[in-house]
Amino acid sequence: MTLSKNKIKYIRSLELKKNRKAEGVFLAEGHKLVGDLLGHFPCLLLAATPEWFASGKHSSQLPADEIVEVSEEELARASLLKTPQQVLAVFRQPVYPTDTSVIGRSLCLALDGVQDPGNLGTIVRLADWFGIEDIFCSPNTADIYNPKAMQATMGGIAHVKLHYTPLPDLIQTLGADIPVYGTFLDGKNMYGETLSTHGLIVMGNEGNGISPEVSRLINRRLYIPNFPAGRETAESLNVAIATAIVCAEFRRQAPSL
Amino acid sequence: MTLSKNKIKYIRSLELKKNRKAEGVFLAEGHKLVGDLLGHFPCLLLAATPEWFASGKHSSQLPADEIVEVSEEELARASLLKTPQQVLAVFRQPVYPTDTSVIGRSLCLALDGVQDPGNLGTIVRLADWFGIEDIFCSPNTADIYNPKAMQATMGGIAHVKLHYTPLPDLIQTLGADIPVYGTFLDGKNMYGETLSTHGLIVMGNEGNGISPEVSRLINRRLYIPNFPAGRETAESLNVAIATAIVCAEFRRQAPSL
Repeated sequence: MTLSKNKIKYIRSLELKKNRKAEGVFLAEGHKLVGDLLGHFPCLLLAATPEWFASGKHSSQLPADEIVEVSEEELARASLLKTPQQVLAVFRQPVYPTDTSVIGRSLCLALDGVQDPGNLGTIVRLADWFGIEDIFCSPNTADIYNPKAMQATMGGIAHVKLHYTPLPDLIQTLGADIPVYGTFLDGKNMYGETLSTHGLIVMGNEGNGISPEVSRLINRRLYIPNFPAGRETAESLNVAIATAIVCAEFRRQAPSL
Repeated sequence: MTLSKNKIKYIRSLELKKNRKAEGVFLAEGHKLVGDLLGHFPCLLLAATPEWFASGKHSSQLPADEIVEVSEEELARASLLKTPQQVLAVFRQPVYPTDTSVIGRSLCLALDGVQDPGNLGTIVRLADWFGIEDIFCSPNTADIYNPKAMQATMGGIAHVKLHYTPLPDLIQTLGADIPVYGTFLDGKNMYGETLSTHGLIVMGNEGNGISPEVSRLINRRLYIPNFPAGRETAESLNVAIATAIVCAEFRRQAPSL
């Protein structure tokens, strides 16, 4: 079997959001990522080298509509990676109902304009680690189906649901007793606060932080202390790093199940 | 003034480690990064647009051997960035004495084969935030002077010293009472441990973790709990994310100055 020119063109076209959106699909590449997503999302097309199939996979058991065995050279022509891996697959984008009541029962993240696909994917990966299952993203946040974002999730996208929705509207529908956290330079040292096991943690844009419209709606302002504490510094933390440090502290304080 | 063809070629050649090493220099781009490094490292060449000079900079005050005002188009020809910024500069690589006695007095990091330049730069940035001033890197760790690594430091490289040296030899010279930490799936939950204010925290390669030779020399094995704790998961954390979570906990426990 082989990949037609048209199919290669189709796969490569999924680098662009407008094409992914029009088709309602996304591309995943590599053994770990494709392996984690198979069975979680409907797979429309899987292309892999003989080596990949020989590594214990049997096409008869693979939940994919179309399965093509290709040479490494052919895979490289379809791949968007600098170093193509032995397998790539096209999956259907999942459609989730956006149920904001989860925020009253569990810890959720909100991303207010995170721009870098790598940061977004890394945040999904760490959310999975910390058992955070829902992430609400402002419409100007990067697209999780961007191939770079997808690679950075390392499969975490199989367990974490992303909802793109205007954050001010979302927060205004929450009850006033729902904690909405954000980190600010003038917030309270988070290690001195009793952190909730439910609610929303808002993280902002790489350069500009949380937008003014969303900032106004945050009712718990936190600060991640640097060290030595209070040291004057021009430095800052990458948004995925800050998200990780905050989530780790919420989970450290939480009674485990 | 203008950048000669040869100079543009020279600047672009600094994408490669062998050229950076032969010249003993590195390239930095962008307002924030160049601004943070000027005055910290000897600057051999600074090229910027009229807009950059107009934003409050005066060439007479700039500590650079050679200063060139260039058009945006010309800067774009020299730049290694997808989206060139208004300024780039060539700095001399600093040479630090490698004094391992700092490990007995302060908290230091060791990186055992961190491959991704973005991860390395992000680790330098967060080390700066947490007041960690020395990072010991195995020779197969990415080069901090890689332009992508340098961009990711966001200037943190001005306050953090990197030492490339074989880690097994380094650790074997340390006194047996010096704590050498590493994270392992079978380590002890770090939240139950009393963490030191000095010693070495070893972080490993993205895919393979800490090498066997270094693992054997680690005398404090830690584990970063996921949530719910002990949940079976195929997931993992990005190395920069794991470094941040570990460093945050060390600094949370430390008496501040």
